[in-house]
Amino acid sequence: MGNESKKVAVIGTGVIGNGWIIRFLANGFDVVAFDPADGAEERTSAAIDRAWESVEALGLKEGASKERLTFVSTLEEAVQGADLIQENVPERVDVKQAVLHDIDVHSKSNAIIGSSTSGIKPTDLQEKLKNPEKLVVAHPFNPVYLLPLVEIVGGEKTTQNTIDTAYKIYESAQMKPMVIDKEIEGFIADRLMEALWREALHLVNDGVATTEEVDKAITYGAGLRWAQMGPFMTFHLAGGDQGMRHMLEQFGPALKLPWTKLEAPELTDELKERVITGCENFANDRSVEELERQRNEFLVKLIDLVEDYWP
Amino acid sequence: MGNESKKVAVIGTGVIGNGWIIRFLANGFDVVAFDPADGAEERTSAAIDRAWESVEALGLKEGASKERLTFVSTLEEAVQGADLIQENVPERVDVKQAVLHDIDVHSKSNAIIGSSTSGIKPTDLQEKLKNPEKLVVAHPFNPVYLLPLVEIVGGEKTTQNTIDTAYKIYESAQMKPMVIDKEIEGFIADRLMEALWREALHLVNDGVATTEEVDKAITYGAGLRWAQMGPFMTFHLAGGDQGMRHMLEQFGPALKLPWTKLEAPELTDELKERVITGCENFANDRSVEELERQRNEFLVKLIDLVEDYWP
Repeated sequence: MGNESKKVAVIGTGVIGNGWIIRFLANGFDVVAFDPADGAEERTSAAIDRAWESVEALGLKEGASKERLTFVSTLEEAVQGADLIQENVPERVDVKQAVLHDIDVHSKSNAIIGSSTSGIKPTDLQEKLKNPEKLVVAHPFNPVYLLPLVEIVGGEKTTQNTIDTAYKIYESAQMKPMVIDKEIEGFIADRLMEALWREALHLVNDGVATTEEVDKAITYGAGLRWAQMGPFMTFHLAGGDQGMRHMLEQFGPALKLPWTKLEAPELTDELKERVITGCENFANDRSVEELERQRNEFLVKLIDLVEDYWP
Repeated sequence: MGNESKKVAVIGTGVIGNGWIIRFLANGFDVVAFDPADGAEERTSAAIDRAWESVEALGLKEGASKERLTFVSTLEEAVQGADLIQENVPERVDVKQAVLHDIDVHSKSNAIIGSSTSGIKPTDLQEKLKNPEKLVVAHPFNPVYLLPLVEIVGGEKTTQNTIDTAYKIYESAQMKPMVIDKEIEGFIADRLMEALWREALHLVNDGVATTEEVDKAITYGAGLRWAQMGPFMTFHLAGGDQGMRHMLEQFGPALKLPWTKLEAPELTDELKERVITGCENFANDRSVEELERQRNEFLVKLIDLVEDYWP
């Protein structure tokens, strides 16, 4: 299925904006870009050239072409007739509100406006809009043209139709959209990354580890697992046949230990049940042994692969 | 190079103890195991059988054989003549101290005692030993027979010779040993994992995300990068040509935002410099563009691989 009929506008062409341009081009969209900075068009061209080999290797959609990008000199021209407008301007609420306002008034009434903000709540971004129902946060991850995750978060005035339409467009660009119902700063993925990042800074700050040691502690250990399995399923497997239920009994008390600078939540019965049934549902009748077999098969191939790329 | 002449004793054969047994057997060691629990030997046999295909696929060392495991009925017999004794008993300081004491008195004088503890400081474990200089923490990661990281931490009474010898033995078992000079609870890798884990529990506790959403937020995003690159180098690349230096200018202020429950350290000039030079040293004259090219090449292959294993 091609995306020949879809037109996307990308506003702001830094690392993230260029990442979106490459992803949309690789997936057969027409893309119009606007960025007022000097030399923006040349930098975008160079970024596309550097990344194109990678997206080709992953597989281009029918009709995909670098030639389907047009750089224009006004925002108004860029958003005209676009089905999706992706906003990637600097991470300041006043700057984003002003640009989103202009996008809103110049775009067609059924357009979707996706903001790439990594932390600002969509309700705050909707404040100045005439048609706030068109806006969602659509937060991607670097490199945008390779990593499939996009967090979709609606604000108070976003309609379900906007969320559904946004979901379909990002999915058709080979992404794994995740709709987040509750608005919080940093959404989900960045909160998790930030926690690890802050702890890493503490370790370096306290002289316990160098940045290189922190990085190695991830890549040679837990990082290998996280490409395939998140923290909950990882612990589900560490619990043996009883899975997460056993894990929480055995390591629950460690939450009280001073193992990070982050204070842990109280492990109430309700939280326990939520975690256990969450893992069991995700496992979907696969036993821990079966999950373990799949994980091992994956890890063996991954270790073979990653050895060529480790520093 | 085989490990024919090396004998390893494994004390305690739960998930971690069995993982060590499999790794040492796969690397051509003679292994003697002891665990007083009923049915321990049968469970170890079953664990070896389940994992053997994986270690075979990664590549067995010369002389490696499942047959080179002996299960014995006393601790004394197990540790006799062993070059390395790996302790994996329950995570309680009194239990470990008692078992380590017995290991110490029955092992040869130049043996290395490695404790698999994931959090207890080696100085605390040395307290009851006659020969405390023999002991190091050697903390592995599950599955021990596949993940290469092992954290080596000496206590106040550990000699440099013990650390050097331990390093060589674990390295000869195809591991990536990391020596940690400063004793802190949880060492390095578990502190990082715990920070992420605690934040994940908060998100589930606050009803922001399900366990499945947390896991997907990792596997479809940052987790893909962490198999090859830790958090510091990841941000080094996110900073564009200027690397970490630019990154800290742009996103440093976000440390003040309530993006996780973990309070961030003050981003002093000293901390900044430590982080920037750390990344630059690790990059070792490779430009951000060069690092980016390698990352992309890796990610393309990884995404091809992992798609078969994602749930």
